[in-house]
Amino acid sequence: MDITYRPIGHFQTPHKHIKGMPIQPTGAQGIKGTILVLPEFREGLKDIEGFSHLIVLYHLHRSRGPELTVLPFLDQTPRGVFATRSPLRPNPLGLSVMPLCAVTAEGLVLDNVDVLDGTPVIDIKPYVPDFDSRPAARAGWLEGRSGNAATHRGDERFAAREREEGGGPR
Amino acid sequence: MDITYRPIGHFQTPHKHIKGMPIQPTGAQGIKGTILVLPEFREGLKDIEGFSHLIVLYHLHRSRGPELTVLPFLDQTPRGVFATRSPLRPNPLGLSVMPLCAVTAEGLVLDNVDVLDGTPVIDIKPYVPDFDSRPAARAGWLEGRSGNAATHRGDERFAAREREEGGGPR
Repeated sequence: MDITYRPIGHFQTPHKHIKGMPIQPTGAQGIKGTILVLPEFREGLKDIEGFSHLIVLYHLHRSRGPELTVLPFLDQTPRGVFATRSPLRPNPLGLSVMPLCAVTAEGLVLDNVDVLDGTPVIDIKPYVPDFDSRPAARAGWLEGRSGNAATHRGDERFAAREREEGGGPR
Repeated sequence: MDITYRPIGHFQTPHKHIKGMPIQPTGAQGIKGTILVLPEFREGLKDIEGFSHLIVLYHLHRSRGPELTVLPFLDQTPRGVFATRSPLRPNPLGLSVMPLCAVTAEGLVLDNVDVLDGTPVIDIKPYVPDFDSRPAARAGWLEGRSGNAATHRGDERFAAREREEGGGPR
């Protein structure tokens, strides 16, 4: 059974290349980007301005893969891909929680943008702390390492084989 | 541009019908369910047992829609679909943060399961508080209402036109 989605828009961001880009929103503080929402979907943005954060789901269009065992950015040990945020997933779906800065006529301005320019957006959901925030969750092998995402930058390990065709590090 | 995904497995849950089912994991405390992961993807589950919570992304296969303006379960005012967790989204992608109970030979046992039996699973990500937890986020029109999801149950407003073909309320 195939599941077919159609982008509702795409990201415009300063990240033109994988190499050197942030690997999580925590490493992209102050970097703004835009989701240009296709005109036929803009009605769906009504009331979104009341939310301080959004969950953005996007297609990691430059990811090569999949690989079921990956070497993540923040570790030296190979890990099962579903225990990582690597883009080399069987379905290369990216997820970032981003602060919402502004709603414009064409879409949304977001902060802490860790997404490659041109990335297709699949869905936008409001971040609701009761549903989505679990501050005491235990983070497995990432415990004590996830904070390093604030300073770590992408390299080419997840990039597609073609030169400069990155997957959006994650 | 179409994006094609293939399920990595599917949910087995006690929720056979939309009507009466929980609308969020907060309303499904103690209800366990299983993700049966297809054999060819099970290698990707390695190391996942260290995480207390997972982000599960699934295809709301019984959702009718899309509708850009919806009447959410927790409100009497129509809202833009991207400002809600309604299943009537242009791309009917569901997201739940669920506690991980056990890893088995066939897949994962999860708690607080608010998903319809048979729902196809698209991706599983580890929940990482540094990346995903924003306890102070402002929840727009859901502020002061999202707690009601703990007791609210699904009705048929999001169900497909066919009898008993629900979308997984959300």
